[in-house]
Amino acid sequence: MDYEQIPARRLHGSVGIVQTHYAHFNDPLMLKSGQMLDRFTLAYETYGTLNADRSNAILVCHALSGDAHAAGYHSDDPHEPPGWWDSAIGPGKMFDTSRYFVICSNVIGGCRGSTGPASLAPGGEPYGLRFPVVTVRDMVEAQRRLIDYLGITQLWAVAGGSMGAMQALEWGVAFPDRAANVLFIASTPRSTPLNVALNEVGRQAIYNDPRWNEGAYYHQRVRPTGGLAVARMLGHISYMSDAAFERKFGRRYQFGDEPGYSFDTDFAVESYLKHQGEKFNQRFDANSYLYITKALDYFNIADGYGSLESALSRLHAGVLIVTFSSDWLYPPQASIEMARVLSRLDKRVEHYHVDADHGHDSFLLEVNRMDEIVSGFLDRAHAEANSTAA
Amino acid sequence: MDYEQIPARRLHGSVGIVQTHYAHFNDPLMLKSGQMLDRFTLAYETYGTLNADRSNAILVCHALSGDAHAAGYHSDDPHEPPGWWDSAIGPGKMFDTSRYFVICSNVIGGCRGSTGPASLAPGGEPYGLRFPVVTVRDMVEAQRRLIDYLGITQLWAVAGGSMGAMQALEWGVAFPDRAANVLFIASTPRSTPLNVALNEVGRQAIYNDPRWNEGAYYHQRVRPTGGLAVARMLGHISYMSDAAFERKFGRRYQFGDEPGYSFDTDFAVESYLKHQGEKFNQRFDANSYLYITKALDYFNIADGYGSLESALSRLHAGVLIVTFSSDWLYPPQASIEMARVLSRLDKRVEHYHVDADHGHDSFLLEVNRMDEIVSGFLDRAHAEANSTAA
Repeated sequence: MDYEQIPARRLHGSVGIVQTHYAHFNDPLMLKSGQMLDRFTLAYETYGTLNADRSNAILVCHALSGDAHAAGYHSDDPHEPPGWWDSAIGPGKMFDTSRYFVICSNVIGGCRGSTGPASLAPGGEPYGLRFPVVTVRDMVEAQRRLIDYLGITQLWAVAGGSMGAMQALEWGVAFPDRAANVLFIASTPRSTPLNVALNEVGRQAIYNDPRWNEGAYYHQRVRPTGGLAVARMLGHISYMSDAAFERKFGRRYQFGDEPGYSFDTDFAVESYLKHQGEKFNQRFDANSYLYITKALDYFNIADGYGSLESALSRLHAGVLIVTFSSDWLYPPQASIEMARVLSRLDKRVEHYHVDADHGHDSFLLEVNRMDEIVSGFLDRAHAEANSTAA
Repeated sequence: MDYEQIPARRLHGSVGIVQTHYAHFNDPLMLKSGQMLDRFTLAYETYGTLNADRSNAILVCHALSGDAHAAGYHSDDPHEPPGWWDSAIGPGKMFDTSRYFVICSNVIGGCRGSTGPASLAPGGEPYGLRFPVVTVRDMVEAQRRLIDYLGITQLWAVAGGSMGAMQALEWGVAFPDRAANVLFIASTPRSTPLNVALNEVGRQAIYNDPRWNEGAYYHQRVRPTGGLAVARMLGHISYMSDAAFERKFGRRYQFGDEPGYSFDTDFAVESYLKHQGEKFNQRFDANSYLYITKALDYFNIADGYGSLESALSRLHAGVLIVTFSSDWLYPPQASIEMARVLSRLDKRVEHYHVDADHGHDSFLLEVNRMDEIVSGFLDRAHAEANSTAA
């Protein structure tokens, strides 16, 4: 590897060149549905160094379309984009790899190296729809095996945005002693019927694609790219805000100053969405999209505990909650209510409401605000832990 | 017709049994795109009686999926639902048919009796995608022919919600002397990039349906019902609000109290949307959906006039603007800005902002508030017209 070839800018504050690892687990994973996965693999990456007493690990959980590659680069190709949360992970960044050992794993049900519907079932053929429905709770149970395997008793923090935050919260509730802090960013304690509705439209677009073939398309020459593209286009809409669309596109035409009065792509916003749909097909599996959106739909942290209050009463972790004013996918109100319940339960909780107009995507785009909030929270958590220990 | 068979409840305040009429126009219609329609038909209905000096006509314009059947019933079948704005049109209602002669026509490009892509082209085959792209301006130009044909020089009002309001505004701007009042309800002076984005996702779902066959499906046994259903499901989402979804469905399951952990319809909200998609296929043509959403996308009242201000400066009509707090499809802000410009231009304008949580659909559901606002506006317009005349 010739590091000299990589522009200095790319490596400043970067974790540099990283590799994805694969952990194989041969003990069955019991799922919330009552079904079972005989064995499974998790793809994961780590950044920074685990300290001697294994107390500096932060697990970062990804959202719907994310993967284990959260930071740095896989090659020295200067055109390769960095990991999906590179703005947050690296030396001096909010998840400071000079202090923390950061872990990110791809979820089960996914298609980026972890076991999912595209993986080979015990008989040797891809699962397709025979893959069991998984929940956020199951994703977290699988991650717990990884953390055991890495020899970590207690994570210093579990952090995520969107579905990543659902996993972080589930960690705190399911395994109260395994995470000292939970960072719950741009998310919801339970999916709303609007969330379910949007996901179901995306799924119907996939079901309607004849190439989907009831999920058994892995041996076909063609895949259900049309359906997945429509689902992704709709996803993108839900991650943005009215204001973000206005700023980015307005009513600009893709070509020239005049409307084409045809069904070709005419507005810049149409071209953008089509491009997003096509790009997504390069890296994502339609069946995984079905499974992961189902996991989102079933997410309700109160599930199995009777109420939100009883679920949250299990938490030992300190909780950071961040909401964004223009996030209409996961409106701030439900998170604010959760912060109130945590206060009432005398839990350590901090809530920040960020006025930002990027919509749900704000958690990835408001880098400076996020840095200030997360770094501050982690510093205060350290100070408190030290004063308790003293 | 045996009126005795109809429960009294159905006819109280109802216009009763009505018929759709068809007006054929053999002069070509020049379109905004530069293309031309050789001849066209408009389906329309009327309610109430045109007075001697033809001064009591109100044109009601419909939204995306509407038609000419705005009020009353087509038969004495007690299970038949009434016209789409029956809550607003009838004796004693906000468009009081004991005072006004109410006209509603289906738009060109539609599929409910007016000329559109499913109609036969001059060669004798259905147009399909050979039908020219039409705009809201073109819809209004076609309606103007109908109003001429009915012998009406000046409409007392042109009224509509959503795309109906776009037509009403376009009437006021394009034909300043032909409408004394414009009622602009739950709409926008220009489609936003978010509006275009949502429409494009619906269109892509239709394009992706192999039964769509580039729009040439009229001779097929099967139609692109899958694609149109997805488009309609997404439409329904955009007409509701987060709060309306919560109230109507919450996280209720369709069957029983437990999740099914499968890809069958599990949540009540999924079942509702699928039902809406299927129902829509009974009455709507996929190509018309493409054409009408394109007309929506191209709508910008400033188009051709240089600015919103110059467009609005053409208005002679008094304008009623109604916005709804939870309408995220057409957020109130743009209408409020339009009201400000009208005030600055010294136009007669009234704006009412209704706090209602049904989302965009509020304009159809907030019957009592709408009744008060619209009746009040029309009464004041009459009083002013009389005092000016006196």
